[in-house]
Amino acid sequence: MKLVELVPNFSNGQDKDVVGLLEKCVESIPSAKLLDSEMDYDHNRSVITAVCPINDVVDLAFDLIKTAAENMDMDVQKGLHPRFGSTDVMPLVPLEDTSMEDCVKLSHEIGKKVGNELKIPVFMYANSALDPKRKNLENIRNKKFQIEELRKAIGKGDYVPDYGPSKIGKAGATIIGARDLLIAYNIYLNSDDIQAGRKIASAIRARDGGFAYVKSLAFRMPGKNLVQISMNIVNYRKNPIYRIFEAVRSEAAGYGISIVKSEFIGMVPRDAIVDTINHYLMSDIENKNILDFKAGKI
Amino acid sequence: MKLVELVPNFSNGQDKDVVGLLEKCVESIPSAKLLDSEMDYDHNRSVITAVCPINDVVDLAFDLIKTAAENMDMDVQKGLHPRFGSTDVMPLVPLEDTSMEDCVKLSHEIGKKVGNELKIPVFMYANSALDPKRKNLENIRNKKFQIEELRKAIGKGDYVPDYGPSKIGKAGATIIGARDLLIAYNIYLNSDDIQAGRKIASAIRARDGGFAYVKSLAFRMPGKNLVQISMNIVNYRKNPIYRIFEAVRSEAAGYGISIVKSEFIGMVPRDAIVDTINHYLMSDIENKNILDFKAGKI
Repeated sequence: MKLVELVPNFSNGQDKDVVGLLEKCVESIPSAKLLDSEMDYDHNRSVITAVCPINDVVDLAFDLIKTAAENMDMDVQKGLHPRFGSTDVMPLVPLEDTSMEDCVKLSHEIGKKVGNELKIPVFMYANSALDPKRKNLENIRNKKFQIEELRKAIGKGDYVPDYGPSKIGKAGATIIGARDLLIAYNIYLNSDDIQAGRKIASAIRARDGGFAYVKSLAFRMPGKNLVQISMNIVNYRKNPIYRIFEAVRSEAAGYGISIVKSEFIGMVPRDAIVDTINHYLMSDIENKNILDFKAGKI
Repeated sequence: MKLVELVPNFSNGQDKDVVGLLEKCVESIPSAKLLDSEMDYDHNRSVITAVCPINDVVDLAFDLIKTAAENMDMDVQKGLHPRFGSTDVMPLVPLEDTSMEDCVKLSHEIGKKVGNELKIPVFMYANSALDPKRKNLENIRNKKFQIEELRKAIGKGDYVPDYGPSKIGKAGATIIGARDLLIAYNIYLNSDDIQAGRKIASAIRARDGGFAYVKSLAFRMPGKNLVQISMNIVNYRKNPIYRIFEAVRSEAAGYGISIVKSEFIGMVPRDAIVDTINHYLMSDIENKNILDFKAGKI
């Protein structure tokens, strides 16, 4: 079956009614399934994980982007996380028999429709990037280049959108693209030492010589004596979770800091769970040996 | 959905054609699913794991017991494992929305039907036991009390069957009952010191004051410099796998012995996997956060 996972990030993690409207977009398409919905107040960001057959992807993505545009105002939105627009990023992930090429094609259909019909500037990223510099999300939008900077730069040099007008309205801009399955993973350290946190984040990320498929940042959690190492694992087969966890533990120990907890944002593939248990228990469970009696899955 | 897992043990682990007939019993019921089928030549025993909705459990269990009775002859059967009959034990495990009470009720329906129609003596065990002594399987059938002993004792004292005649034919007797999901788990130690192995097995098992839901034995692996700690975890929620693994590691370290590997026999419930990863990664994944895109499961 040709299935696609959509993992849109929205710039509102505070208003349950608005996030509820987004969830309804998924529920209104019978073939689509809402796998997860998470709100983060501090980052003022929500992430929805949905899956649907390839034929319904354009409709679902467009509905979500339209609903977000109608219900968020980037002129007033604030939040810790780098952000660009009401639908900040719309990643399309190929599942099962879907190819990356299928998702690239779909992403461009969505980008074109969003640009033309909603008049939102669209930047295509990851495998869908037309400009090689846009393969990497951080080259488009990062802590130093958010919507405030984009308002001035849009339409010039590196900031000509791929679709839509060179004009930023209340919905901001949207970044769309096909990418591999990604694990969003955070580790919390019992420290308020953001300098140490930054060094730990740096030690494990690809950009600074760490794991080739890890992106990471350190954040100090407001009002809490905690530093968060926020990660994206873009290839969990080559950089398994347990290895990253143990590397963070070891780096942190060098500063006399220990791990308080870790968390996954959104969905974790079962393979990644199985790899982790096999590492710690020195076992060799395979997917087929797992009895999954929830949700009628057997 | 009301699902029941059946894990019947049969006294034939050598004849593929016979085990094939048992597998066909499962396949002939459209709602039932064969999860696993294992044959053990030395023990001359096979174990089938099947799942089906509650309404089909009696038919499936009866078919299996009837087929085993027609194709095995306990007058000639030999094997290392304690054994009583062609269908040696028929455990019913409640899954999903099924309650233990549901399974107890079903097990008695099956026991009655097997006793009346197949004329096989039936002993009800575990949660279905009518005699409290029969709650524990080893109190019915063990290395010292197998079919040879039962032939003489049947109908007297502790050996009056719950259903069926007090007479042992070629199908032997059958033990039926509802029990909780059980994890069969082995840990291998890099040592040939069986004395140390026995002390480690003793330290963790309920009988000797260890974990309340663990049964364990130590075996020296023939021809290998390995001791196996063989376990049944009869309540994995109260005695999670990682805790048992860490206890074995700690006990073994006291003898200068370390763990080489561990293995699961048959199926492991997904909950147990999730508990283990959450322990080691200090995370809080829930079942719903696991993306399982194999076999069209989303």
